[in-house]
Amino acid sequence: MTTSPPAPPALRTGEPHGYTLPLSPSGRSSMITKPPWHFSGDVIMVDYRVDPDAAAGFLPPELTLGPDPGAAAAVFAEWQWCSDDGAELADPGRCGFTEFLILIACAYRGRRLARCPYAWVDKAVPLVRGWIQGMPKQFGEVHQIRPVRVGRAGPRLAPGGRFDATLSSGGRRVAEASVTVESTAAEPPLLHTVPLVHTRFFPAWLPSEEPLSQLVVSEVSGVEFSELWTGRATLSFPDVASSDLAALAPVEVGNGYVFSYAETLHHGKPLETA
Amino acid sequence: MTTSPPAPPALRTGEPHGYTLPLSPSGRSSMITKPPWHFSGDVIMVDYRVDPDAAAGFLPPELTLGPDPGAAAAVFAEWQWCSDDGAELADPGRCGFTEFLILIACAYRGRRLARCPYAWVDKAVPLVRGWIQGMPKQFGEVHQIRPVRVGRAGPRLAPGGRFDATLSSGGRRVAEASVTVESTAAEPPLLHTVPLVHTRFFPAWLPSEEPLSQLVVSEVSGVEFSELWTGRATLSFPDVASSDLAALAPVEVGNGYVFSYAETLHHGKPLETA
Amino acid sequence: MTTSPPAPPALRTGEPHGYTLPLSPSGRSSMITKPPWHFSGDVIMVDYRVDPDAAAGFLPPELTLGPDPGAAAAVFAEWQWCSDDGAELADPGRCGFTEFLILIACAYRGRRLARCPYAWVDKAVPLVRGWIQGMPKQFGEVHQIRPVRVGRAGPRLAPGGRFDATLSSGGRRVAEASVTVESTAAEPPLLHTVPLVHTRFFPAWLPSEEPLSQLVVSEVSGVEFSELWTGRATLSFPDVASSDLAALAPVEVGNGYVFSYAETLHHGKPLETA
Amino acid sequence: MTTSPPAPPALRTGEPHGYTLPLSPSGRSSMITKPPWHFSGDVIMVDYRVDPDAAAGFLPPELTLGPDPGAAAAVFAEWQWCSDDGAELADPGRCGFTEFLILIACAYRGRRLARCPYAWVDKAVPLVRGWIQGMPKQFGEVHQIRPVRVGRAGPRLAPGGRFDATLSSGGRRVAEASVTVESTAAEPPLLHTVPLVHTRFFPAWLPSEEPLSQLVVSEVSGVEFSELWTGRATLSFPDVASSDLAALAPVEVGNGYVFSYAETLHHGKPLETA
Repeated sequence: MTTSPPAPPALRTGEPHGYTLPLSPSGRSSMITKPPWHFSGDVIMVDYRVDPDAAAGFLPPELTLGPDPGAAAAVFAEWQWCSDDGAELADPGRCGFTEFLILIACAYRGRRLARCPYAWVDKAVPLVRGWIQGMPKQFGEVHQIRPVRVGRAGPRLAPGGRFDATLSSGGRRVAEASVTVESTAAEPPLLHTVPLVHTRFFPAWLPSEEPLSQLVVSEVSGVEFSELWTGRATLSFPDVASSDLAALAPVEVGNGYVFSYAETLHHGKPLETA
Repeated sequence: MTTSPPAPPALRTGEPHGYTLPLSPSGRSSMITKPPWHFSGDVIMVDYRVDPDAAAGFLPPELTLGPDPGAAAAVFAEWQWCSDDGAELADPGRCGFTEFLILIACAYRGRRLARCPYAWVDKAVPLVRGWIQGMPKQFGEVHQIRPVRVGRAGPRLAPGGRFDATLSSGGRRVAEASVTVESTAAEPPLLHTVPLVHTRFFPAWLPSEEPLSQLVVSEVSGVEFSELWTGRATLSFPDVASSDLAALAPVEVGNGYVFSYAETLHHGKPLETA
Repeated sequence: MTTSPPAPPALRTGEPHGYTLPLSPSGRSSMITKPPWHFSGDVIMVDYRVDPDAAAGFLPPELTLGPDPGAAAAVFAEWQWCSDDGAELADPGRCGFTEFLILIACAYRGRRLARCPYAWVDKAVPLVRGWIQGMPKQFGEVHQIRPVRVGRAGPRLAPGGRFDATLSSGGRRVAEASVTVESTAAEPPLLHTVPLVHTRFFPAWLPSEEPLSQLVVSEVSGVEFSELWTGRATLSFPDVASSDLAALAPVEVGNGYVFSYAETLHHGKPLETA
Repeated sequence: MTTSPPAPPALRTGEPHGYTLPLSPSGRSSMITKPPWHFSGDVIMVDYRVDPDAAAGFLPPELTLGPDPGAAAAVFAEWQWCSDDGAELADPGRCGFTEFLILIACAYRGRRLARCPYAWVDKAVPLVRGWIQGMPKQFGEVHQIRPVRVGRAGPRLAPGGRFDATLSSGGRRVAEASVTVESTAAEPPLLHTVPLVHTRFFPAWLPSEEPLSQLVVSEVSGVEFSELWTGRATLSFPDVASSDLAALAPVEVGNGYVFSYAETLHHGKPLETA
C-alpha cells in the first residue's frame, strides 16, 4: 500500500521518546509530528531552463537528465499543513509557512522524476521536516502576491492578473519572479506532477562514521490541483553569493502558473523500489 | 468631494522633500507614499462586549458610548495594499501585512462611530501610516487561518469551517480567537461599517510645546465586502501585561465573521466637520 | 538648562492620555515613554566621503555643507536604552535594538552639525521615537561583529581585530562595512561629536493641511566614549534600489572606528535657538 | 586524540557532495560547515532544582540522576561561531545567534554529565547543527541584557549589576530569569563544566525503518571562562503549553552566574567509550 506509514518507533516504558527530538516522557514534545502530513497551498510556479551540464552536476550517478535535459522550475508557495488529527490548525502561527524551491528534471530507469537541489522555508518545523525526507531546506523569506476577491490591492485570477514573488535569504534578494496569467491550463506543469527524488542525508558526527545517504522517493496521496492559470513569466536570481546556485540561473524562461495544490505526504521509498 | 486628496506639500526647488521622512532630492525616498492607499484583505472578526465603564475610559470627552455601550470587536486581517499606481504589488514583501485591532462602539452627536484603542501590525510601513491617521499601531505577530480550495490543511468557507487567529506582541500571546462559520450573513458586522474616529497625535518634543492632538474621522471610498460567513466564536486575551488593555477583555463573546474586505483610504476630516 | 524636559501634556481627568499613542486611562499604554531616554551601545563607524553635490541635495536651505563638504559617516550600533526609571532593562527584548545610519557633515551659521538623511533600526519603538525627533528611521536588519574576551569566534579589541557590519532592508543587502583596528585613537570621529540637526516632520492628513516641518537640534547630556580603536576600513552599498540613497555611496573611504558610546537624549531645540 | 575530526565523507568525482544538505558540485552549498566549530559567547545562567522524578523521565535507561538528583540549570547565551577558517566572521548575520537551554544533572557509570532535554536558538544553522549532535534545538527568541561600559542603559559587571533574560517561542513567553551579581566566583557552575550527553536521533522515514538513536558525548577543546560573576537569581516558566516542559519548572532557584565562555566543538563519541 502506498499510504502505509513508517513503522512507529517502539515505545519503551520509562524512556523519553518521540518521532523526533526533543524526546520526552509523553512523546508529545517531538518537534515534528508523525507523518502523514497534509498540505494545502497557493503556488506561483515558473518553468525555465538551465544549462544541462549545470543540472547534471546536481544529480547523483543513479539519475540521468532524462528526456528533457535542462528543464527546471522555480516554485513559490504559501502553505498550511497539519497532522492527521488537524490539531495544528488551531494554532495558525504553527500551521502556516512559505517555501521556495528549485526543481530539475531527471529520470531513473526511464521514469521521469524531479530533483530539488535547493529549497527555502520561513519556519523551523518545515525545515527540519524537510531534512527528514532529504529536502535541502534552508531559511529564507518568501513573499508572493495573493489573488484578491475585492478591491484594487491585488490581481484577480483572471486574464491580465499579475503575480509577483520573491525570495530573500541572509538579507540578500536571491530570486524574483512574475507571472501574468492569460488563460486557464488543461494540465499542471510537468515538474509539479512527477515524484521528487531526494538524497536523505544525515552527516557524520562520530569519528570514522560515514554519513547516512539514501536516494528516496516521496510517497504522496490526495493530490489535488485547483483550476490552473497560466501566462508569460519572468525569473531572475539577482544577488546570489553561491557559484553552485548561480549555475542554476535561467538561460531561458518559459510559462508561469498560478494554482492551489494539496497533497498528503506519507513516507519515503528507496529509489530502486519506487 | 469625499475623495479629494490632501493638498500636496509645496515642492521647493533644491530642497529635500517627500510625503514623509526620509526627505530626499527626488522625494521618492519617503517611507510612506502619498494617499490614497488601496487595501484588500481577508478578515476574521469577533463581536464582543466589554465593561462599558472600561470602554468609556478610552473615549475623549467629545465622544459618548452611543446607543450600545460596551459593544466591541476584535478584528484580525491579512492585507495587501498599494498606492494609486499599484507599484507596490511588484514587491510582495512590501505590499503585504497583517493586523489586529480592537474596536469600541461610540458616537458623536448621534452618529455611530468606532474607536480603535489598540492596534498591532507586523510591518513598519503600515505602523507609521497608522500614526499619520491617529491609529495607535504597535508591533505584533498576527496569524490567521486561511480558507483552502483543495486538500485537508484548512477549512472551506462552508458550514463547519473553523478559522483561528492569534496575536503575539513582545513575545507574549496577547489574543486568541476562533470562528466556526455556520451560514452566510446578510449584513456585515456593524463595527466594520461605521467610520473610525482617531486621535491624531504627535507628541511634544520641543520644551514647552504641546502635542498635536486632533480628533479626525477617516475618509474612505470603494468599500467592498465579499460574501460574509458567520458563526459562533471564542475570544480571549491570555497574556496581557497592560492593565489598560486587560480592562478591554471580553465580558461576553458574540458572533464571529469571516469575509474579504476592500477600501481606499483618502485622508482625514476633523471630527466636527465629518 | 539644556536638560529640562519638554513640558508634559496636561493631564485631564477622565480622558485617555499618554506621551504618545496608544492613549489610555492610565497613560501607561503609550508606546513611547517620556524622555529623557538613556542609551548605551557598541559602535562600528566608518568615515567616508560622498559627492558634495549629492550631500547638498539632502540639506534644507538653512544649512550649508560647512568647512568639509562631502564628509560623511556610516554608523552601525547595537544599543540598549531605558527610561529614567530603568524599567525597560527588566525586559531585554524591549530595551535592545540595532541601528545603521548615514551622517553628512553640515553647518548652521558656522556651527558644525551632522545631518542624518537615512537611518534604519530593527524595532518599532526606536523607529517611532526617531520620527518624534525627526530621525528618518526605517526598518532594517543590522548585524555587527562583537569583540570577544575568550575563544576564537570573534576579534579582540586589539591590533588586527576585524569588525564587520551589514545592513539589509526589504530583503536586500544595502550596506557592508569592515573595520580592522590598529591602534587607539585620541579623539572620537568628528561626526559622532557634533549635534544632529533633523527635520521634525509630520505629514499632512487633513485636506489643505500643511505638514509639520521644523528644523530641530537634539539636546543630549551624559555623553561618554569608551576607549576608541581605529584602523583601515571598507564600505560599500551593494544592492540599493533608491537612486537618492545610491547618490550617497562612498567616493572615498576613510578610517574606521570601534567604540562604546552613551548619551541621554532630552528633547529638541529649534535650530535657530540651538 | 580528543580533537581528531570525524572522517570526511569520501568525495566521489562528478557527484554532488557536502558535509550536509544541500549537496552541490563544489560541496560549498552545505548548510553546515564541517566541524570543528568555534564558539565564543556571553552567558547568563541560573542553577535551579527540579523534581527528581521529572528529571528522571528525561533520561534514557543508560543514565542515572547521579549524586545530585534534581540539579538543573537554565542557560541563556549570545554566541558568535565560526569554522576553522573563520570565514563566517565576515558575515555578522551568519555568525551570531542566541540560545536558551535547560540542563539536568545526570551520570554514567559514576561520571557526572549533563543532559539537555530542551534547547532553543534563533537561527536555522545552529538549529540543524544541534540536531546533528543530538541537541533538541527548536526555534525561539532569546533576549538577554548585556553589561555596558559607558552610560546608564545597562548594568556593569560589578556588585549590584542586574542581568535579565527571556525566552519566547511560538509567540509565548516561555522563560524569564534575572541575575543580580554580587561577587566573583572562584569556580564555574558545575553543569557548565561537565560533558553533555545527547541522544543523536534521526527519525524513521522509510517504512519499517527504525530511527537512528545513539547516546553520544560531545568532544570539545579550548574551553575558556572569563571572570565569573555570581549572585542571587530568579527563574520562572510563565506560559508553557507542554506538560513535559512544565514538569521541569523550578521547585527551587539557586545562584545565578554571568560570564563569557568559549569552546571548540569537534565531534561526538559513543557514550560507552567517552
